[in-house]
Amino acid sequence: MNYYTGSFTDFYELTMAQIYFLEGLDKKKAVFDYFFRTLPFKGGYAIYAGLETLLDTLESLKFQPEDCDYLLHQGFDPRFVSYLQDFHFQGNIYSQPEGDLVFPHRPVLQVEGNLVETQLIETLLLNILNFQTLVATKARRIWSVSEGKRLVDFGLRRAQGPGGYYASRAAFIGGVDATSNVKAGMDFKIPVSGTMAHSFIQSFDDELTAFRLYAHYYPDNCVLLLDTYNTLKSGLPNAIRVAQEMEKRGHHLKGIRLDSGDLAWLSKQCRKYLDAAGFKDVQIAVSNQLDEIIIKSLLEQKAPIDLFGVGTRLVTGEPDAALDGVYKLSEYENQPRIKFSESLGKTTLPHKKQVYRIRNHRNSFLGAEVITLRDENPEKVCQMYHLFEPNTHMSFALCKKEPLLHPVMERGKRLMPSKTVQEIRKYSLTLFQDLPEEYKRFVNPHIYKIGMSDSLKEIRDRLFRIEMQENKK
Amino acid sequence: MNYYTGSFTDFYELTMAQIYFLEGLDKKKAVFDYFFRTLPFKGGYAIYAGLETLLDTLESLKFQPEDCDYLLHQGFDPRFVSYLQDFHFQGNIYSQPEGDLVFPHRPVLQVEGNLVETQLIETLLLNILNFQTLVATKARRIWSVSEGKRLVDFGLRRAQGPGGYYASRAAFIGGVDATSNVKAGMDFKIPVSGTMAHSFIQSFDDELTAFRLYAHYYPDNCVLLLDTYNTLKSGLPNAIRVAQEMEKRGHHLKGIRLDSGDLAWLSKQCRKYLDAAGFKDVQIAVSNQLDEIIIKSLLEQKAPIDLFGVGTRLVTGEPDAALDGVYKLSEYENQPRIKFSESLGKTTLPHKKQVYRIRNHRNSFLGAEVITLRDENPEKVCQMYHLFEPNTHMSFALCKKEPLLHPVMERGKRLMPSKTVQEIRKYSLTLFQDLPEEYKRFVNPHIYKIGMSDSLKEIRDRLFRIEMQENKK
Repeated sequence: MNYYTGSFTDFYELTMAQIYFLEGLDKKKAVFDYFFRTLPFKGGYAIYAGLETLLDTLESLKFQPEDCDYLLHQGFDPRFVSYLQDFHFQGNIYSQPEGDLVFPHRPVLQVEGNLVETQLIETLLLNILNFQTLVATKARRIWSVSEGKRLVDFGLRRAQGPGGYYASRAAFIGGVDATSNVKAGMDFKIPVSGTMAHSFIQSFDDELTAFRLYAHYYPDNCVLLLDTYNTLKSGLPNAIRVAQEMEKRGHHLKGIRLDSGDLAWLSKQCRKYLDAAGFKDVQIAVSNQLDEIIIKSLLEQKAPIDLFGVGTRLVTGEPDAALDGVYKLSEYENQPRIKFSESLGKTTLPHKKQVYRIRNHRNSFLGAEVITLRDENPEKVCQMYHLFEPNTHMSFALCKKEPLLHPVMERGKRLMPSKTVQEIRKYSLTLFQDLPEEYKRFVNPHIYKIGMSDSLKEIRDRLFRIEMQENKK
Repeated sequence: MNYYTGSFTDFYELTMAQIYFLEGLDKKKAVFDYFFRTLPFKGGYAIYAGLETLLDTLESLKFQPEDCDYLLHQGFDPRFVSYLQDFHFQGNIYSQPEGDLVFPHRPVLQVEGNLVETQLIETLLLNILNFQTLVATKARRIWSVSEGKRLVDFGLRRAQGPGGYYASRAAFIGGVDATSNVKAGMDFKIPVSGTMAHSFIQSFDDELTAFRLYAHYYPDNCVLLLDTYNTLKSGLPNAIRVAQEMEKRGHHLKGIRLDSGDLAWLSKQCRKYLDAAGFKDVQIAVSNQLDEIIIKSLLEQKAPIDLFGVGTRLVTGEPDAALDGVYKLSEYENQPRIKFSESLGKTTLPHKKQVYRIRNHRNSFLGAEVITLRDENPEKVCQMYHLFEPNTHMSFALCKKEPLLHPVMERGKRLMPSKTVQEIRKYSLTLFQDLPEEYKRFVNPHIYKIGMSDSLKEIRDRLFRIEMQENKK
């Protein structure tokens, strides 16, 4: 399902693009950087997601006839609208692999193409990458404290409208094992999961009848919801009774689910009674406003929980509403461009660039990345400068430098077949093992160092000085 | 554009619905209530949005052939899948008008139909109403402090994926005047707006060239972005120069936009210089992480701002990720149903219901609503009981009672033609004038009283007592 068409854009992309087109600037070459400035959740890392969605979108991006009619009515020039009618994105994209670790203030992706096409894709690129990266990062935080327990995305009902579709995709990449979202499960081949709501129990004369019926229809995948009436006095004894009846027919109750109350205490009680009744294999699933903080606390209390259903806070990235990713011009007709600010921290970096992850001789993360000009010889880059603090630099003479940005699209065509979310998830979780623990903790995590090479610094500083002088006039 | 199909659902709706169907419960009548428990943003009201989207969706809801194939592969019974293939929602819906004021713990909408169809629509109903109500409420808060200044939604790039489409719709209903979102503008006939980004300025040799070109192409709608290099030293003088040049050609600069820095101070400086240059009519637009708190502060500082561009915090409902709306069974085969909790506050209300807004003899809001059984004679309801505190009640003998829930869909068909967002917005803003100021303030707003009639209380309490006794066994 493709939710993104040509009209999925901010109006100003079109007003700008029209001028570029009518002025013949569709022959001019531009480079834009995608990057963000703040790690979400006050965390120590972010997980990059959305790239495959973006590449799919760009390959098929079209302005529909109704888009073009609308733009004519909005007063756009028929020559420009006719150009849009035939528009295909034909630019190049350099990017990190989806699922990679990403950090602030350095490019995650670069777009090269003519000025019109690179401008026209801004809004959808930001929409796709900002949101999926936010949710994948949230999911990874949850995964990082879940001790291998099964995680299921339950968020669709409170997701932000159809955004829930991509939330489920990103959550899976982040580390969730399954989703309740049927459409996402179908399209992305994510395992789907779900059993019953309270209304199911209420639709029968009593809880036991409802449980028996469910066990009858789903003998191999029977998870009973215990808290419709009273978890310990009604739900649990009824579940044990049904489990015993199932055994007689050669089936096994798969699990129980708790959706309210003190989940730590209730899960311990349920485990105790289940075990005593001989049902050591019956799993305990819990849900109800869960997030990484609550899951961590439950497991620290040794709550015997096997599955966490995580909803709203996962698929909306709560408490952060958005990743603050931006898309900034860094080169125009092979000339460097910066967006100047009197604060160095808000001044952007010019030119086509490469980012290298630095590993020591044992291949461990040094917790640092250096941004260079794309064509610089990395062998010769042995130190880096802080982006905003001119007196801070760092050396890494004997370290390995792993390039992070790779060509993924050329003249509008993918250079590799699309990756499945399963491949991306696996890559991402494996790489994540390399990130030292200090970057993963929730409270005051280590700050990953981002620096730049001499050559890049020289150009950035020169452009910055010119702008400062202009400003003093 | 319809983003919602049959597979936009949680998997458990299907596992439950299959049992209902195979057990012949598609002949059984169910009633579900949609309500929420907590007002967003710690505010005193919420603005109901999404109803027309829901009705459109329900009228056209279908399981696609690929959905059905997928469900067969997931092990669903061919008889059930064949039922889904021909599925059309044929239930009845009672609802408040879209744009109305809504409050916690009482129905906003009720769905009646057979048990299968009412269960199948749960996820999409919640997804649509929860999100649009959240954003419409956020927009209304912004509108309520904007003193009639123009508000434009700039949020698409950081919206939660394709959720941005409905965010723009809901934001307009809430009070925003225009959107940058082309697709939403096109489909919902919302005015679209947008001019230039910093990259536009950077694509030319200098700012003046860029400004002149923009004025050349858009002489009637020229808003210049001032802060690419330096707002006061470069942007503003260049804008004034272009404004003067435009005058000579019989055109007028429409406005300037500030996107960084101290917006209160900069807008005052810009106003001063623009006025001194004879451009009293040139408007000042601002943007940059705005929300209701910042806009209120800017206007309290008498910042001479004519237009606010509001982005991320509007379209994501930041700092609240979601409205906590739920969908609960309240009647089954004409028998009342409650979801029991030992806490009365979490126990749901049984039966088909009506909600009356109470106004005094001068037609002013009394700040109270009473929930009754649907068929109760409202004339005879002269007092109401607090939902959770048995000793609190309130009388309103001489007051008017305005029924809020109206039939909007019968047997799956709308009872009225769909309303435009313009109609909904107008209705909503007019009604909002009636809400006393104490409910509109941001800090500790008045609490709108929600009570229930004797008859409803009697049934709820009886069911509650039965459950409590069951629990004590």
